[in-house]
Order: sequence, then structure tokens, then C-alpha cells
Amino acid sequence: MSKSAHRTRRGREKRRAERKRPRVTQLPYIQRKIPLMELLNEEGLDQIENNSEQILEEIGMDFRGDPEILGLWRDAGADVQGERVHIPRGLCKQALKTAPSQFIHYARNPERSVQIGGDAIVFAPVAGAPFVFDLDKGRRYGTLQDFQNLTRLVQMSPAMHHAGYFSCEPTDVAVNQRHLDLIYTLVRYTDKPIIGAHGQASQAEESLLMSRMVFGDDFVDDNVVSMVNVNVNSPLVLDETMMQLLKVYARQNQAVIITPAVLTGAMGPVTVAGCLAQLHAETLAGMSLVQLINPGAPVIYGGFIGSVSMQTGAPTFGTAENAHALMVIGQLARRLNIPVRSGGALTSSKTADAQAAYESMQMMLTSVMSGINLMFHSAGWLEGGLVTGYEKLIIDADRLVMLQRLAEGIDMSENAQAMEALREVGPGGHFLGCNHTQKNYLSAFQDSKLTDTSSFEQWQTEGNMTTEQRANKIWKQMLKEYEAPPLDVTIDEALQAFIQEKKASTADVLI
Amino acid sequence: MSKSAHRTRRGREKRRAERKRPRVTQLPYIQRKIPLMELLNEEGLDQIENNSEQILEEIGMDFRGDPEILGLWRDAGADVQGERVHIPRGLCKQALKTAPSQFIHYARNPERSVQIGGDAIVFAPVAGAPFVFDLDKGRRYGTLQDFQNLTRLVQMSPAMHHAGYFSCEPTDVAVNQRHLDLIYTLVRYTDKPIIGAHGQASQAEESLLMSRMVFGDDFVDDNVVSMVNVNVNSPLVLDETMMQLLKVYARQNQAVIITPAVLTGAMGPVTVAGCLAQLHAETLAGMSLVQLINPGAPVIYGGFIGSVSMQTGAPTFGTAENAHALMVIGQLARRLNIPVRSGGALTSSKTADAQAAYESMQMMLTSVMSGINLMFHSAGWLEGGLVTGYEKLIIDADRLVMLQRLAEGIDMSENAQAMEALREVGPGGHFLGCNHTQKNYLSAFQDSKLTDTSSFEQWQTEGNMTTEQRANKIWKQMLKEYEAPPLDVTIDEALQAFIQEKKASTADVLI
Repeated sequence: MSKSAHRTRRGREKRRAERKRPRVTQLPYIQRKIPLMELLNEEGLDQIENNSEQILEEIGMDFRGDPEILGLWRDAGADVQGERVHIPRGLCKQALKTAPSQFIHYARNPERSVQIGGDAIVFAPVAGAPFVFDLDKGRRYGTLQDFQNLTRLVQMSPAMHHAGYFSCEPTDVAVNQRHLDLIYTLVRYTDKPIIGAHGQASQAEESLLMSRMVFGDDFVDDNVVSMVNVNVNSPLVLDETMMQLLKVYARQNQAVIITPAVLTGAMGPVTVAGCLAQLHAETLAGMSLVQLINPGAPVIYGGFIGSVSMQTGAPTFGTAENAHALMVIGQLARRLNIPVRSGGALTSSKTADAQAAYESMQMMLTSVMSGINLMFHSAGWLEGGLVTGYEKLIIDADRLVMLQRLAEGIDMSENAQAMEALREVGPGGHFLGCNHTQKNYLSAFQDSKLTDTSSFEQWQTEGNMTTEQRANKIWKQMLKEYEAPPLDVTIDEALQAFIQEKKASTADVLI
Repeated sequence: MSKSAHRTRRGREKRRAERKRPRVTQLPYIQRKIPLMELLNEEGLDQIENNSEQILEEIGMDFRGDPEILGLWRDAGADVQGERVHIPRGLCKQALKTAPSQFIHYARNPERSVQIGGDAIVFAPVAGAPFVFDLDKGRRYGTLQDFQNLTRLVQMSPAMHHAGYFSCEPTDVAVNQRHLDLIYTLVRYTDKPIIGAHGQASQAEESLLMSRMVFGDDFVDDNVVSMVNVNVNSPLVLDETMMQLLKVYARQNQAVIITPAVLTGAMGPVTVAGCLAQLHAETLAGMSLVQLINPGAPVIYGGFIGSVSMQTGAPTFGTAENAHALMVIGQLARRLNIPVRSGGALTSSKTADAQAAYESMQMMLTSVMSGINLMFHSAGWLEGGLVTGYEKLIIDADRLVMLQRLAEGIDMSENAQAMEALREVGPGGHFLGCNHTQKNYLSAFQDSKLTDTSSFEQWQTEGNMTTEQRANKIWKQMLKEYEAPPLDVTIDEALQAFIQEKKASTADVLI
């Protein structure tokens, strides 16, 4: 046998062995190695910051229904008139000096713990949709079964680093008991980091009790195992429910995200620069409040941006203005040295079609290039957040793998420079069979089960399916293959007993 | 009547008048005001450049079938061995000192002329597809009728600044006469800048003769009214046909784009850094050759990047590696101070679905953020360039309007800062009806006829159409509304007479 035939056979065996290596089931959180889009110069950022401080001092912000919090503001030096708080210039920035620039958000499987802040990027799924959609059963109210399925899919998606909170509303569970099933499902069906219960303060307390059963009291006292998203009721109002939530999480050292949910033209000015000043004022005040309650508690700067159609009043996403806002939000948060979250694959489309993908991709790619640390709604969002799409989740999750690779930058090693390959192949040759390609082909490009690159004829033979139709097959296959991550039986039983007890003591309330 | 009712009525009348203003039919070329993604640092760029120079000197490049060009290289100081040319380090950079950093590409309507280079961004449609696709008639060979229709749609798309060349192949026209109908259609149906004929040198000559009939000899001698895309036969070969084309355009001072059409892993190394060194070597050599032929003739750095699937050998687009390559291509061209083109809305999808949009958007947005000056294939591309989609063209063109707005940056004027609006509305108010919104709502967001933001119920009532289905309605309506731009009758007659004469003197060759 010739030497080269030998080499070929060895190469083939090696490739066969490599193909048998276990498939990637989970990627670590992203450590960004690409530079950032810095849309505004220092002068522009100064201007926005200055406007925010002026808004807080001159116009003020309402903190409704919570005398304790008004007292905290007064003690910190703010001018409190009824429920309106005028915050002197510089007070918030001073208060935020105790906020950590980054922290670890622990998962029950330590390998799944993620860094929030710095150069880290973490993807979490859609949250909060009352409806679900799939190609088989169409659009309908979400159920606990749907939530369990979606959580399984999230667990199996390699570039979903975080399990989020409620990838759909389980509307068949009593609203006052829903948080118990949500947290249990997240703990039982995934081992990724999770968000805590929203809603009433008592529900938040109970969800943190459940986290304590999983992690142990000592660990929870010193580490972040849960977080909450506190929405500002824009413009410039924090209401009682949100402040209650904020207090529960802040006092237990769990992370609080302050997110003004602003649609420009409705809850904020119709112009981006104006909206950003308002949003910055609101996040500054909210995050400072956390520090006033518990100095050093982790906070996250929340930047959720959409617009309102001036023709119909409907929310719109994936616009140029939304992209501009995202870029500046990243810059403003970095100036404060505080982690930042964004919305991700946002769209107002009803179905996982071209509009959905165009809008979602624009928001996702802009997020990654804007240094966003935690991207919520990064997979599954449809119809302005009213619907979680099974197929959309799969399609977005596939793109997240691509975005992870994009964010991790370019390989400039000697191997990647490939000078030997160029010498070997030379003018007019081809690289398909060269040594360098054989050595690198497995890791050269990201792989996708979803993307179709076949010929037209092959595609026809396979049923000329759209991406949505292929995604439909994939999620059904994934649910068949799903295996629950191991969970200590003692913990499982304790959680179930807790839930049973709580459910027994409350009447069902369905909405 | 109260003062405020007065104001409301006046506002309503004003809005009604504004709605009646003529719709935007064309946007000027983009003057980029957002910063650039600078993926590699200086050290990385030095490394790529250094590798390119080493490739040219040590490995060399083949210039096949043209002794004249080998002579030019020899005279310039290269080491010519047969058809292989070893170009000493520094020679290309020296030769490129005569290449203009930017120039005007003239349209027959002076208002449509575009700047190529600097901070300008110009969008041109898909080129070169033998097939077309629409939802009514499916996938089929392109005809002259299709080409005329596509050219009409390009003319009517506001953010398509350039008409390109052959948005589909009119396969029902004899291949040796096709260029005549292509150029005539572009001149007659649009008044945007156009690309000249490719193919044989005689066809290129004839297409430039036709441009001379439109613009006049004196004007063409001194100005760019046409351009050609010269593909390097990667790796490292320029073949005879391409060099003939290059010579025709370079000698008449028309712009030459040097585009290595590289699919990484096939015509270039499987790693991005290696592929970039090769691509840079090839463009350096091609653009230098133009300067050796006619110092000062305009050249464009061409960066078309895809990959080859290591599973199937099929071309793939919109990958993370493609995005990395695009970003660096922008940097390398800027270092040379030479305009740069890219592919645009590339995808291997067969239909204008989510995959098509995800892949296309990733390439388009990355192009814009990478400082690409001329984006070819920015609308209509399907199936790796084999197919031009009518619906895809409409969907992409809609996104181009968004990208134009994105690239033009954020408004930081006092009006945009909206401090008066924030004072007027205050905590807990809403911005929909405030003075600032009324004053700005028409220009606040880009408008789209294609994007659906309605409620689910409304969407259902209107026939629950996908984006592709809506695009189908739009292009048919556009063709109904199309009006040809005026063309001087003398010019029109001269062109027709020229075509008749040329067609009479050649036999039909259909392929």
C-alpha cells in the first residue's frame, strides 16, 4: 500500500472516530471577543446623562404606595413631595458605587452557572406570553404542559445559557398557585440558571424559599441564585407591586433588573434621544433604590425597546430606531460599570416567517454588538410578546449558536492563518481535500440541523419544507430525546411537599 | 370654540396636508454616520497583510492566456515564470497609490448619481441568477420579461440606489445578444446607475458604446458611468476572459471591481484568517493590474464571502465566519483607502422564509456595520444565487430602507432630546397625544408597507398572510403603478438602431 493511501485511510478512520464524539449539548456562556458598536461619542453620552439627571431633579419620579421607600429617598437627600421624588443631580451615581460590576448567577448544576456583566453574554428564552403557537395545533392559550415542553426545549438548546422564567403562561394553573409550578418545572426540567417568581411579594418570597431548598440557606445568603425583572411603569413611575418585588429580592441579595418597558411614542418620547434620557433616568433611580435598600445587592440595567406605530398604535420591533437605542443603552450601562440586559428576538409578526426573522435578527445581532450581557426573549418570541412559538424557539435557538460563534471572534492562530495550506494548494488548486482542511473541517464552521443548504432537487425530494416546517419536526424529535437532568430526590420531595402545602392553603384563582 | 379645540383642529388639518405630500420614491445614497465594527486590531491586520504579500511573492499568482499582461508585470518589477507571476513585497501597495479613494458613479438622471467610497453606502440588487421564483408561477428560467419586471421593481425601490446589471438572466435571448437587451432595459426602465456588460470583451465594448450614446463621449472619457465585476478564479488565478474585461473597462476609465468569489473550504482555506490572506493577495494583485494598465482608473475591492458545507459540499451563507470575514475585508480596504463592495442579502434558502431572512439580515447588517461602500445582491437573492425571488426582492428592499436609516445614525438635536415633551407629559402620563409627538410623528420612524404590526384578529381578517404572501401582492401592485423615467427620444432611437444592427450581424446562440 502506498504511503498516501495509508494516509488517506488513517484520515478516514480519524474522521469516523471524530464523528462519533458526543454531540455538543451545552455551550458555556459567551465571553465576547469582538469589539463593540459605540454609536454615540462622549459628548453625546454626556448629553443623555445630563438630561437624565435633569429629569430626575426637575421633573422627578413617582414611587407609589410605599411610604417606606419615600422615607429611604428622603434620608438619602432627595426632595420628596407627596409620592413624587426629586432626586438631586449626582445622588444616583453616588448610590450606584456599591453595585457590583459583575457577578455569578448560579445554576443548580455548577457547570451551567453564568457570569452576568463584563464581557459575558448570556442568552435566555422568551418570557411572559399568554399564548403559544405551533404548526400542528395553532394559536392557543399556554398550559402547564406547554411550559414543561418549552422548558425541555430550552434545556436542550446549546446556546441558551439561561432558562429564564415563564416561557409561556401556564393558564390552566390557578394564578395564585402558578409561581409554584413554574419554579418547580424550571428546577425539575432544567439545570440552567433561573429567574424567580414575579407577581405578589408573597409569591416572590415563596419562590426564593424554593431556591433555598435547592441551594441551601447559607449559599443563597451569599450568592445569586435567582433574579427578578422590575418594570418601571414608564414614564417615571414605580408602582407598589414592583417595589414590593424589588424589596424582596434586594433584601435577599438576589439580582434585580430594572427595566423600563418603553415603546417610543407611547411610554416615552417619539424620538430616540428623548426616550433614552427618560429610560436612563428610570433605570438610574430604580437601581439606586436597590442600593439604598441593600448596598451591594446586584442590579442589572434593563433596556427593552420597541416603538409604537404612528399609523395604528401597534407595537413594532426591529426598527432602526430600536437598534440605535440598544447601542446607546449598552454604552450608558458600561459608563456606570453595571451589567445590562436587552430584549432579543423581538418581532410583531404572527408567524415564524421572513418578517419575524428579519426583525428578530436585527435585534439579536445589534444586542450582541452593543455589549448586552443578558439577552432575554432570545428565542421563541412572536406577536409582540403575546405568543411563544414552538417553531420560532427552535429557529431562534439555531441562530443563537451562530451568534455565539460570531461574538467569540476570529481565530488568528498560526493554524488558522493556513500558510501551509496555501503553499500546498497553490494557484488553480482546491482546498476541499488538502491536509489543512482535513485537520480543521470539523471545527471550521458551526453546524446546524435546521439550516437547509441542499440543492433545489434534493430539497424538493425531501418535501420542499420551509424553515418553520423543518423546525416543527425538530422540536418534536427533541421532546422524544429529552432526558431530565438528575435532581437529588430529597430536594425533589421537599419541593413537592412545599408546593402541596401551599396549594392546600390557597383557593384556586383562574384568570 | 376653546383654544385647545382650535389647536386640535389645526393639528388635524396639518396632519392631513402632510399625509398628502408625495410619497418618497427615491432615497439618496447613504452617508454613513454610525461607527464601524473594527474586528481585528492593528497587529492582526498587519499579520493578514504580511501573509498576503508573502503569498504574492513566494507562491505567486497565475495570469493565464495574456502575454501583454505578463509583460506589464515584468516591466513593473515582478518575477514572471511562465504564466506565474511572483510579485515582490510592496509592489502592489506602490501601484495602488494612483487609485482614487472615492469617485462618483454617474446615473443618466444626475439626481441618482452615487458616490462610491468614503462614508458612502450604495445598495444594488441581486445579479446573475439564471432562475426566477414567484409565488404564482414558481421556479423557472428567467426571461427578458422577468428582467424588465425586476428592473421596474428596482427602479421603484427607494433604498435601491443602483440598478446593478442582470437581476436575472434573460435566457430567452440569444446569449451573444443578451448584453444588448440587458443594457437597453437598464437604460430604458431605470434612471439609476448601472453596471456594464460582462462576458466577452466585444460585448463589454458594445455596452460601453451604448453608455457613450447615453452620456456622450466627452463625459464618458472623464467620468465613471459603468463598472465591471472581475472575478478572480480563486485560488490565485486570473483567467483570460476576466483580464480582457478588465482591460476594456480600465482603458476607458470605467470602474473595475476585483472580486475573488471565495467559498471558504473550497476556493480558499477552511479557516477565515487563511482565506482573508488569500483574498487580500488576489484583490491587491487585480487592483494593481488595473493601475499598471491605466494609472488612476477607479478600482473597487471586492469581498464576496460564503462557505462550503463540510457535510455536503453545498455553499452556505450568513454564517459567523462570513460575518468575521466581512468585517476584516472592510478594514483591509480602508487601510488601502480604496472603496469596497460585498455581497448582501445572501442565503442558501429556496424560499423567502425565516432561514432566508436570518441569513440575509446577518450579511446585510454586518455589511453596513463593516463600512462596505457598495452592497451587491442587496435584494432578491435566493438559493445561493441561482434564483432571483420576486417576493424576496420586495422583502429585502423593505429592509434596506430600515438599514439606510440605521446607517444614518441617531438624531441628537434639541428637538430629538425632547426635554419639553418630558416636562409636558410628566410621571404617569403618555406621549401619544403630546405636542412633541404631533410635531415629529411623521418622520419619527421609517414606514413600511410590508411589515405587519396589526393585531392577531386583524391579521386573520385580512387573510393571515405571511410576509412572502404580502410581498407577492406588493410587487404586482408596483408593476401596475410603474412609470418609466423619461428618456430622450433621440437617445432611445440611437440605442434601438445600434441593437438592431448588432443583432442582424450575429447568429442567435441560445444556451
